[in-house]
Amino acid sequence: MRIISADSGAALLNERYEAQYIVAAVSVLVEPPYRIAQKHIAEPIFSKVANSHELIVHELELCQMLLKETKADVVHLDMSFGGALMEELSPIQLSNISSKARGYLLKILPKMRKIAADIKRVYGIEVLAIGKDSVPVRIAELTAGAYAILYAAEKVVKEKQGVLLGMPSKCYARRIENGVVVHSLIPAEHDIVGFAADTDEILAKVTSSELLNPCARGFRALEITPKVEPV
Amino acid sequence: MRIISADSGAALLNERYEAQYIVAAVSVLVEPPYRIAQKHIAEPIFSKVANSHELIVHELELCQMLLKETKADVVHLDMSFGGALMEELSPIQLSNISSKARGYLLKILPKMRKIAADIKRVYGIEVLAIGKDSVPVRIAELTAGAYAILYAAEKVVKEKQGVLLGMPSKCYARRIENGVVVHSLIPAEHDIVGFAADTDEILAKVTSSELLNPCARGFRALEITPKVEPV
Amino acid sequence: MRIISADSGAALLNERYEAQYIVAAVSVLVEPPYRIAQKHIAEPIFSKVANSHELIVHELELCQMLLKETKADVVHLDMSFGGALMEELSPIQLSNISSKARGYLLKILPKMRKIAADIKRVYGIEVLAIGKDSVPVRIAELTAGAYAILYAAEKVVKEKQGVLLGMPSKCYARRIENGVVVHSLIPAEHDIVGFAADTDEILAKVTSSELLNPCARGFRALEITPKVEPV
Repeated sequence: MRIISADSGAALLNERYEAQYIVAAVSVLVEPPYRIAQKHIAEPIFSKVANSHELIVHELELCQMLLKETKADVVHLDMSFGGALMEELSPIQLSNISSKARGYLLKILPKMRKIAADIKRVYGIEVLAIGKDSVPVRIAELTAGAYAILYAAEKVVKEKQGVLLGMPSKCYARRIENGVVVHSLIPAEHDIVGFAADTDEILAKVTSSELLNPCARGFRALEITPKVEPV
Repeated sequence: MRIISADSGAALLNERYEAQYIVAAVSVLVEPPYRIAQKHIAEPIFSKVANSHELIVHELELCQMLLKETKADVVHLDMSFGGALMEELSPIQLSNISSKARGYLLKILPKMRKIAADIKRVYGIEVLAIGKDSVPVRIAELTAGAYAILYAAEKVVKEKQGVLLGMPSKCYARRIENGVVVHSLIPAEHDIVGFAADTDEILAKVTSSELLNPCARGFRALEITPKVEPV
Repeated sequence: MRIISADSGAALLNERYEAQYIVAAVSVLVEPPYRIAQKHIAEPIFSKVANSHELIVHELELCQMLLKETKADVVHLDMSFGGALMEELSPIQLSNISSKARGYLLKILPKMRKIAADIKRVYGIEVLAIGKDSVPVRIAELTAGAYAILYAAEKVVKEKQGVLLGMPSKCYARRIENGVVVHSLIPAEHDIVGFAADTDEILAKVTSSELLNPCARGFRALEITPKVEPV
């Protein structure tokens, strides 16, 4: 199966380790053995966490954009409704979730169903609200984490000021020669990774050090600061 | 403590990675330090997933068979009722579970209580509905996974056609000289394994490659195909 | 952030692997990158598990004691109420928990709020009921586990009789030259540890072997016995 998925992730944290801005959104194409994105589209978004419930619409649009470039058999969205068809998701199926979350979802549901219907019409494939059960969603999350490091580094270089970047759940970043790899630390996901190519060699201009988010177990953070040039 | 436990597991998947047939059932005897089965009985079952709620009765019968061969202090069943005595489990205690699951359980409960009472009478030991809290249940699950690889390989050789075998939750298989070891990938279970001896050297006749089940995070699958003989 | 936290943990088990006595209580000071305690106070307690709901009061007192020695920005308590301020925690916020647990909490709540108010008045910092979300709480738990090994070994030497020590959730102990390190086995916590210095060289007088608690997945136990001297 060729699966297209999307996610947005990694967040700039304030000094109390609270998420303020979501940094990156990506869509990915994943093929067997489902360990890394084969193709992807990545975007810096720096979107306020308070508005993050609307990001799912943009994630679906990114899936649509990727479908213009490549074929796929199904789309996996980061919404956890047991793999229900997005196109057929009705307000009744939302009755199990909190009223606040339901309010947000009802607002975006018409738009989501419209895009899912478009994808079905044009490409003949389904959009599933599968969320936490999907490996491609996790790969999208890790890929977003990898790009977020590049985007945060660009911001640090441009603004000459450090940032604290909260990484996605249970993963860690490793710099390699031509980019950054984000490895899952979840059991049975030891071989799942996200990768972002550092084509502008932005990582050479910053220093980063890893720490644990003390107020959110399982979440790691990177302190990214401008590299001090030797005089 | 000498603990006897049982489980059935690993499933043949269809092309959408959905479980179709449960492949193996085993009962195991586990002793300190509780890391591997000391004795066991294994059976190929290839039972339809739709009927899998009845497998628990057969699992208990396999425990009974193992008790004929070896002594034990207690039986651990893969039913999660906080370690309640199987013999005393009443319909009232099932009130917390879904009505569908309760329906299935009520159907098998008289038979289960009967076997548990027999075990108590003959061997003087209790049958506990401890399920997910039990390490021996996990060892039974991994042992079933190891045997399922042998049974699936036999099927592949016999039918000259590949299968996709979904492994138990969070584990991976490793071929060793005389068989196959299934290692747990769950935190703090790094030293728990299931083992199946490949006495008929069936594994030499197949090729297998591991992939992730894209629709069920934490589950790995093996694509097992007949080995192509050099001409 | 400099965070003070506390926990009590590790338990003497009976022959059915059931916890009987909580062995150690500690408070810890944790600083970035939040991987180990910088300072701590540790106490052997050997407190009956049946009374363990009252230990949280003593844990907060240990935090208060550590505050006399060192500065901190906040106190993290092992009570999971989403990071609510302890001083403002009201019976209404306890409505989501079981009536038994609520009964215990209502009994200790006045005392807890009193100590939290004292800490606020004297040191100007908040006490948060953050529990399972806190990395420092986990570090306190692992540090308690490390000290529990020393305290249990002392008991074994004094009473010339072995004990079975149940370790905290998902961790394992490793003896090093001058003490014992307890490593977390939870995903994304591979670099979090607790440490206890064996200043009295008590560990040289005992033998220990690790096993899995068969009735509680994720929990390991140590069988600690007096070292048999060569004649």
